[in-house]
Amino acid sequence: MEATEKKVARLATPGLRPGGRSARVQASVHAAVQALLAEHDRAELSVPQVAALAGVTPSTIYRRWGDLNELLADVAVERLRPETEPADTGGLRSDLESWLEQYREEMSSEPGRAMLRDVLASLGSAIGAAQCCAFSRQQLAVIAARAKTRGDVVPDLDAMVEVCLAPILYGILFDATIMDEGFVRRLVDRLLTPAP
Amino acid sequence: MEATEKKVARLATPGLRPGGRSARVQASVHAAVQALLAEHDRAELSVPQVAALAGVTPSTIYRRWGDLNELLADVAVERLRPETEPADTGGLRSDLESWLEQYREEMSSEPGRAMLRDVLASLGSAIGAAQCCAFSRQQLAVIAARAKTRGDVVPDLDAMVEVCLAPILYGILFDATIMDEGFVRRLVDRLLTPAP
Repeated sequence: MEATEKKVARLATPGLRPGGRSARVQASVHAAVQALLAEHDRAELSVPQVAALAGVTPSTIYRRWGDLNELLADVAVERLRPETEPADTGGLRSDLESWLEQYREEMSSEPGRAMLRDVLASLGSAIGAAQCCAFSRQQLAVIAARAKTRGDVVPDLDAMVEVCLAPILYGILFDATIMDEGFVRRLVDRLLTPAP
Repeated sequence: MEATEKKVARLATPGLRPGGRSARVQASVHAAVQALLAEHDRAELSVPQVAALAGVTPSTIYRRWGDLNELLADVAVERLRPETEPADTGGLRSDLESWLEQYREEMSSEPGRAMLRDVLASLGSAIGAAQCCAFSRQQLAVIAARAKTRGDVVPDLDAMVEVCLAPILYGILFDATIMDEGFVRRLVDRLLTPAP
């Protein structure tokens, strides 16, 4: 029971009273989606099926998430929430290379692509996609702040996103051929090589 | 680089015999989808409805496109096919700024986003997304070839894609806040500023 409460608290979105009815509904609906996705193709999922497994009515889901796409995007965003800070490897370049390489690997994987697809399927609202990129920005900000305390010259956050993060997502979504052996290293070189 | 050029060539839509039965089916199904999309939300579309308007059987569509998502992606890719070469403005920097700014505008628009969403919805196969990026690569290759004949030093095509194209698509899909007033100019500066 205590473990469940903790899980609910961790899963709760900001502003929900941990353990409150709203947080419990969200946790059980998310858990139902994840359980169903583990065994079924997403094309087979339906709102009534999720509702039945979560022990809520379909109208609860429609009222809260709008439709299945929004629900899937919400679950995907939660799974994209980082669990730990980027590893501290002792330097800006190696921190960046290490985190970006891990990010590239995770997002290129079949589950990573499925999450990206779900997040982007609700492109109309774009809230899921914005939240997904906000997580990555936060991780890069942690790396940047750490480098500043070491006394390094640190590129601004927009440059980190544009030069390093954007090509990785472009590679995954549109053109895997650019992601060759030295891909991530090349991106970090480009970011850290100062203009003349 | 040569391998990349070959890939682009291979991705070009294989030669349908113009006016043949296959090409006529494709043309009428595409036209039906576009007509329906002009009046209905894509969530309301169905294969039987498209088939009825196009004057083919639903099984013709299933056999050729697999499912509705693949068909929508195929139509979106066709609409993304460039109709003209990038404008020749007399110099590499201005050619790039002009084409990238136009690309950003078109893809940020509501129809542009809808096309991107359709292309990415078939992310499983990734063929639509690859074709969509192959078109952009071809346009950048035209700009590069033109600059070479003027005697300019020209960055390689992967760098053009990574430094200029990737952040535009990232901005549209994930984070509109990076696309400020000087966005495209900043990307081109980054590409054309030689390493020290």
